[in-house]
Parts: sequence; C-alpha cells; structure tokens
Amino acid sequence: MSFSRLVRFVSANGKTYIGDAILPAGTYDARLATKAKIITGDILSDYTITDEVQDIKKLLSPLSWDQIRNVRCLGLNYEKHAIESKMAKPKYPVLFFKPITAISGPTDPIPVPAIAQIDNETDYECELVIVIGKKASNVSESDALNYVLGYTVGNDVSQRSWQIKKGGGQWSLGKMFDGWAPIGPALVSTEVIKDPQTLKISTKINGVTQQSENTADMIFGVAKTVSFLSQGSTLLPGDLIFTGTPSGVGMGRKPQYWLKDGDVVEVGLEQVGTIVNKVVYEKGVKAKL
Amino acid sequence: MSFSRLVRFVSANGKTYIGDAILPAGTYDARLATKAKIITGDILSDYTITDEVQDIKKLLSPLSWDQIRNVRCLGLNYEKHAIESKMAKPKYPVLFFKPITAISGPTDPIPVPAIAQIDNETDYECELVIVIGKKASNVSESDALNYVLGYTVGNDVSQRSWQIKKGGGQWSLGKMFDGWAPIGPALVSTEVIKDPQTLKISTKINGVTQQSENTADMIFGVAKTVSFLSQGSTLLPGDLIFTGTPSGVGMGRKPQYWLKDGDVVEVGLEQVGTIVNKVVYEKGVKAKL
Repeated sequence: MSFSRLVRFVSANGKTYIGDAILPAGTYDARLATKAKIITGDILSDYTITDEVQDIKKLLSPLSWDQIRNVRCLGLNYEKHAIESKMAKPKYPVLFFKPITAISGPTDPIPVPAIAQIDNETDYECELVIVIGKKASNVSESDALNYVLGYTVGNDVSQRSWQIKKGGGQWSLGKMFDGWAPIGPALVSTEVIKDPQTLKISTKINGVTQQSENTADMIFGVAKTVSFLSQGSTLLPGDLIFTGTPSGVGMGRKPQYWLKDGDVVEVGLEQVGTIVNKVVYEKGVKAKL
Repeated sequence: MSFSRLVRFVSANGKTYIGDAILPAGTYDARLATKAKIITGDILSDYTITDEVQDIKKLLSPLSWDQIRNVRCLGLNYEKHAIESKMAKPKYPVLFFKPITAISGPTDPIPVPAIAQIDNETDYECELVIVIGKKASNVSESDALNYVLGYTVGNDVSQRSWQIKKGGGQWSLGKMFDGWAPIGPALVSTEVIKDPQTLKISTKINGVTQQSENTADMIFGVAKTVSFLSQGSTLLPGDLIFTGTPSGVGMGRKPQYWLKDGDVVEVGLEQVGTIVNKVVYEKGVKAKL
C-alpha cells in the first residue's frame, strides 16, 4: 500500500522520522497534521507503513539531501509568466538546475545572503514539484507518470539581477543560494493525485495573494516534462523537477516588488498543502566578489 | 599523509577499490599505472593509505555517483573560447549545472542518444575539474584553495543545437546526457598540484590536437571560482566544478566539426593525465519529443 501524504519530521522526542500524515477529515494540508504513522524502510525502494504513531513537532523537507540526487527546474512553463518575463513561449522545456543545498523545509527561513542583497531583486516562484520514484530513461509521455512517486510544492526563490543581468545569460547564479528551494509540507503520492494538471497553485506575500493559477495552464505538463527530460538522460529515484511558475512574480508587478527582510512567503498547491517561509536578510557578512 | 593520485578501479579480482596509483618514475598519468596502494575509509573525511597493493584492471571515475553531490560548470572561462563562441567576455563566472548521471569514467564510451543526433552537433570541451574537499561557505579567494581536495580532468560534452538554439537560452538541455562528463584518470591532490594555473590542457580527436592551451589563461582561476561560487551557496565535499574550456572546440572550427560515431576523444591535463573516450552513437532508439 502506498503512503498518501509522506512527511519527514522531528518528533517531540527529538528524533527525525518519516511518516504518513494523519489529517483532520476533509483537509489535505499536512501542516494541519499533529501526528503521523511511522514509515520504515526506504521510500525510494521498499517501505512499510507501521501502526506506530508519533507527534509531529517540526516538519522537514519530505526528502533529505541524501535522498535527492538532482534538482532540475523548468523556466517559462506558464504562458502568462513568459509574457510578464518578456521572453518567448518555449518550444521545448527550458531547463536549469539548482544545487541540493538550495533544498530546505516547509517552515524554514529563506536566507538572503550578502551577494543576493546587491541590487536587492529577490523574488518568489510557486511551483509544482515532481518527485521521481523509479529510474526513467527514454520514457514515453503515456508511460511517464508511472515513474513519478508523487508531488510536493516548492518555491524557486530567484534573485533577478544575478539570474538575468549578471550571469552571462545563464540563470543558475540567481537560483543557487542556500535554502532557496523550500519544499513540502508533504510528498503526496500519485495514488492521491491521479491528475496533476487540475490543481490550483498560489503565492501569498504577507497574507496577500500575488500568484494564483491552475496547473492546467502549464505549457509542458508533468507527463510531457518527465518524458522529455528522460531522453538520453536517466532520471534517478529522488530526483526533483520544479515545473515552473505562473504569472504574478514580483519582477512582473507594476511597480516591481522585491522580497524584504521579514516578509512571509506562503506557497500553496491544491491537494498538497502550503509552505510558509520567512525572508531573513543575512547581516554582518560582506560578499567577497 | 595525503594521497597523491587517487584512483577508483576494478581489480583483477573483480572488486572495486580506491587506491593511490603507483606510477612509473617520471610519469604522472594514472593511465600508465598497473597497481595502486589501497585506501580505506572515506576520502571526503578520514582515510588511510594502506600497504596493500592491487592490480588495476579498469579505471573508474575517481569519485562515484554516491560521493558527488553537485556538478557545477563554468562557461566562457577562457578568453579565446568566448570569442570563438561569439559571446562576451564575462564579468562574473557563468554558471550552469550537469546532472550526476553525466559523470562517467576515463575510458567509458560517450553515448550519443537519439535526441542528441537531431541536428547532430555534438562537441568536446577539455576542462580542469575542481573537487571540493571541505564545506565551503563565503570563503575568500586567498583561503579558497584550502577547501579543494584536488583536481581531475573532464570533458564537458555539449550538443550545440540543444544548448544554444533550442534550450530557450539555457544551456543544460545540451549538456545533460548520460555519460557526457567523463572524468579521470585520477584525482590529484593539492599536495601535488600546488598551483593549478600553470597546467597545459588539451584535446585530441583521433590523435590530432584540436585544443591546446594553459590553465594560466583562465579568466576566473580556481581560487576565484571557489570563492565566488561559495558566496551564499555552500559547496559540499564531493562537489565538482568544471572550470570551462579553452578555444578549439568543434563549434569554433572552420568548417565546424561535430563528433562522429567512433571518434576517439582524448582530453589531457598536465600533472593529472588523460581520459580517452570513444563516441558511440546509439542506434535503434527514437527520440520521443
């Protein structure tokens, strides 16, 4: 039997567990769960959902750094976002990567290091994140969802001046910072989400909605994305794919809005839940350029 | 005591070992080694060079996929290559990533999958590769080499049409294929290579030299690169940094030259050695686009 909403968490006893979140009836956001049924084994191969229940004290990223092999990300995968970014609608998926050190948990702060405070153009991007469950090589679009373990929601935090103006055209410099890819609150299985192209996705800054669209509007859907990226390039269990953000990012607003010290960024995906991360400007460190 | 030239290899007994290569006097290329002194422990933390000697049957990539966390790469880091690529000399390092599945060994084939045979613009790039030994965060240029475990040589194999024309401007689509980052033949310690900016680097195709420069010509040297990339983004032990290629790639030749099925690509770095990889076009698979 598959898990429904896998959480990784610190319990009241101080230990870290993997569990299947026990949710109040009629809810789907693992942030509302106070308890989980403990899972033993390796969720990327063989695991067991036990009857042991533990209290959830703090949710962590549903996968640990050790489990994640590669963090692929798509750009410009919603048409209105491509327009607000003043870039062409892509014919093929636009691919870049983040380092695994960008991955953090659903309530962790988003640190803005000294280098990212230069020009001060830190932005948010709510995204559906695919978690690969099985080695995928040259898979077809019709078969692709069989290689997906589940979905989580992530924020592809982006510093626009390093991404677009100072990186020689490559985006990674503005995407690479520690903690700039919080994910969570749960990894929701493909048994629960059978169709990933029907989900409302949104961002709130300090409680005010700034992005609000539906994954139906993705240019390259989950199946197409997994199939395409697996052509000649094997996707590994534990690989993450951030699938791009809809319109409404700070760069596209008039006037533009950049994340300030203390801002609370809430990124939500229907059936998956929300992650809530506070922006924390690092102080007292000077960038060594 | 540090290792000198660390190799990972399959021995005559079929087992995989880590060892310090035993080289003929006056040579530096671990491809000439037939034996190595076995290393036990974790080369990224504590290890011991033992007196046990094993025969080398086949060299593998000096680090395994499990040890490598992120594969960072610089673009346009030699001035003449920026000119031949018709791109501006960068003010800051130009960063992109490869997936770990690109990493392969010093004698492995370079598979050219069906998707990369479209337009057929597969190219070679010889590069000095930095191996990070200690967690590095916000390090200064003067301190940066203390975080480096050693160096290896790599080929950043690149499919130019997917990299430049069809990837929406992001290079990763043309850089991501399985086995498109062979490295080796050894990981040479910073005890042996105290100054990484004095090394001849070259590529031969079917025995004919096509790239030949010196790491002295790098725009951003090793120390600057490690320092810059560690600003706000923690480098982990086992991270690799490909430092860019000099001029002479197939894209820059007149007429342009693209790697053909059966071509033998030999990439060499002084004090480090050579990797020799044969290009193998995959047949009988159709790209699913």
